[in-house]
Amino acid sequence: MTKFGVLKDKGLMDLLIESSLKAIEDSKTTESDFSSVYVACMLDQTLNHMTGIASALVDRLNLIPAAADHIENGPASGGSAIKNAFYAIASGGCDLALVVGGEKMTHITTPGFITSAVATITHHSAERIHGVSLPSFAGLLTRAYMEKYKVPKEWISSIAVKNHKNGVNNPYAHFQKAITMEEAMKSAIIADPLQLYDICPVSDGAAAVVMCPAEMAKQYTDTPVLITGVGQATDTHIIYEREDITVLKALQICSKQAYDMAKKTPQEMSLAELHDAFEILEAVESEDIGFFKKGEGAKAAYEGLTAIGGKIPINPSGGLKARGHPLGATGIAQVIELVWQLRNEAGKRQVPNAQAGITCNFGGFGNNILSILVERM
Amino acid sequence: MTKFGVLKDKGLMDLLIESSLKAIEDSKTTESDFSSVYVACMLDQTLNHMTGIASALVDRLNLIPAAADHIENGPASGGSAIKNAFYAIASGGCDLALVVGGEKMTHITTPGFITSAVATITHHSAERIHGVSLPSFAGLLTRAYMEKYKVPKEWISSIAVKNHKNGVNNPYAHFQKAITMEEAMKSAIIADPLQLYDICPVSDGAAAVVMCPAEMAKQYTDTPVLITGVGQATDTHIIYEREDITVLKALQICSKQAYDMAKKTPQEMSLAELHDAFEILEAVESEDIGFFKKGEGAKAAYEGLTAIGGKIPINPSGGLKARGHPLGATGIAQVIELVWQLRNEAGKRQVPNAQAGITCNFGGFGNNILSILVERM
Repeated sequence: MTKFGVLKDKGLMDLLIESSLKAIEDSKTTESDFSSVYVACMLDQTLNHMTGIASALVDRLNLIPAAADHIENGPASGGSAIKNAFYAIASGGCDLALVVGGEKMTHITTPGFITSAVATITHHSAERIHGVSLPSFAGLLTRAYMEKYKVPKEWISSIAVKNHKNGVNNPYAHFQKAITMEEAMKSAIIADPLQLYDICPVSDGAAAVVMCPAEMAKQYTDTPVLITGVGQATDTHIIYEREDITVLKALQICSKQAYDMAKKTPQEMSLAELHDAFEILEAVESEDIGFFKKGEGAKAAYEGLTAIGGKIPINPSGGLKARGHPLGATGIAQVIELVWQLRNEAGKRQVPNAQAGITCNFGGFGNNILSILVERM
Repeated sequence: MTKFGVLKDKGLMDLLIESSLKAIEDSKTTESDFSSVYVACMLDQTLNHMTGIASALVDRLNLIPAAADHIENGPASGGSAIKNAFYAIASGGCDLALVVGGEKMTHITTPGFITSAVATITHHSAERIHGVSLPSFAGLLTRAYMEKYKVPKEWISSIAVKNHKNGVNNPYAHFQKAITMEEAMKSAIIADPLQLYDICPVSDGAAAVVMCPAEMAKQYTDTPVLITGVGQATDTHIIYEREDITVLKALQICSKQAYDMAKKTPQEMSLAELHDAFEILEAVESEDIGFFKKGEGAKAAYEGLTAIGGKIPINPSGGLKARGHPLGATGIAQVIELVWQLRNEAGKRQVPNAQAGITCNFGGFGNNILSILVERM
């Protein structure tokens, strides 16, 4: 992956190329081996005035005539691209795929423009027309969660503190800077009770993986990892139609699909990369993905159970909060962190003896979620 | 599929829903049977200010928690969505998929806006910055083809005359109106020598198919057809980098992939649906897909070989010229026409004894092309 952050001199295509070349160089592949390229990006049209970026990238990488597909599934585009490559490979339709996701965002400086662009994913007549945005939904969820489960705000802010601490040791992270609980709790209110440090930054960046059939993996690398489970599920588009806003049904379903495919349980996971675009999401996701009972996710984080060395380390990468969130890149960057952890290559943020991990890549406000389960080979 | 045309009272989501419900009603499926929905659309962001349309559609159709993916591959998005569903089904990852593509375009009335939006698929620094558009490329190609192969303009215009004639008998076509050669040849010059009647219209519309494993097809319909071949290939993004602009290498490659997968030859095809966004494309595609020698496609059309009842009927639907071209819908509408023809349900435009057909779904200016081969079961 590229470093995530404010990458002033790089455009969307530059980022996709840079991360692709890194993935290709990390593998013993040659250009002619690739039969498919999957590209994940959400706002290429709105922020970059580009379409057809997948076939454009294939040309830049000298991979012609490889098949090219661009997937736009909101902030879940990355996971979705991995899923489609996984199926293509499993079907025999593709032997070697490059899966790359990226987003170029920080060149947009008009206040509110990015928030509005992302809000195109909400329901137009039921939600968007009334002025809601993703941060406003996250504020509502934070309030509902705090009230329902009697959760003090510090427990939620502790997730940001943990993720910033993890990010210090991730050279690819947007922020490599620890924050204190006091800083988090004193940060500006954005959508009450959501504060500045409860929200991921706007980032540029891209991330790429090379995928092939398991039986061919040793040809291309000495340190393969296995994708053994993939799941994807939808929920209502309109949030008020959900029985309980604090429950992510789509995550319950898609993570179960991934666990079942891999024949694993949540208890067998060594770590997880969850989608903390807002810190409340990490708390809720850590419950619905099977690590904690409902209402106990934020408390578990506060008590250190999700820190590196804890019961189930979550977001050792720093998560979206500290690594950053270039939308289309995130689902792929999550899998890359699992790969590095399973290869024991994560340096100072290494989770000891990592054997298996799972992701939550979250689209819309939870209406399109993917889980990818990765294991040591 | 919906009717294609200027559909004033319908938005993008309305069109996707209408075509989806028609496909579902045409099959003996129930809502809970669907495990995946693939949505093809090119300009949802630019023309409709929407993202994440696949998961939104799943909710509207009451198919929750089916997996939702949105594919944007320019005007080849429809074929690409079918390909990804095909692989998902072939892998065992999906048992029943709804594949739907659509575009809402005619509400945009700013002159040049649609042409500029589509031109976001060209190479930014090598092409777009100099003011090129897709029609200008088609004009250059028409001139090069006419000069290289000594082709009079009438031969190319005859393709428009044929496709308009076919469209008369297609109740779903944007235009159900025959045109004369004189009208075509007297129509306004758009990008010399390209004239008004050499160019498809801007249309609204959507198209949907239901896909499942072949062995399950009889559960869902009495008249299944088989997808036996799928191919996809890329070519250079920048057009001047191609050895010969009159050769569509990506089509040669992807149609060969489809023929090889199906173990069929071009000579065994009963008909074809080709991507005549510009009429010159039908001529060139009819060569590169294997029906005619290079330089003989336009002549063949002029001589009636591609009319219904001819050697190889092309675009009995009316093609993009007469059926219309709601970008994301086109690749799926092409397959739907093949389905109707193979089921012997095409009415007055029926190709006698249709056994097998192939498509060309063309993205960019030929840098991302798919072929889908369909046969009677």
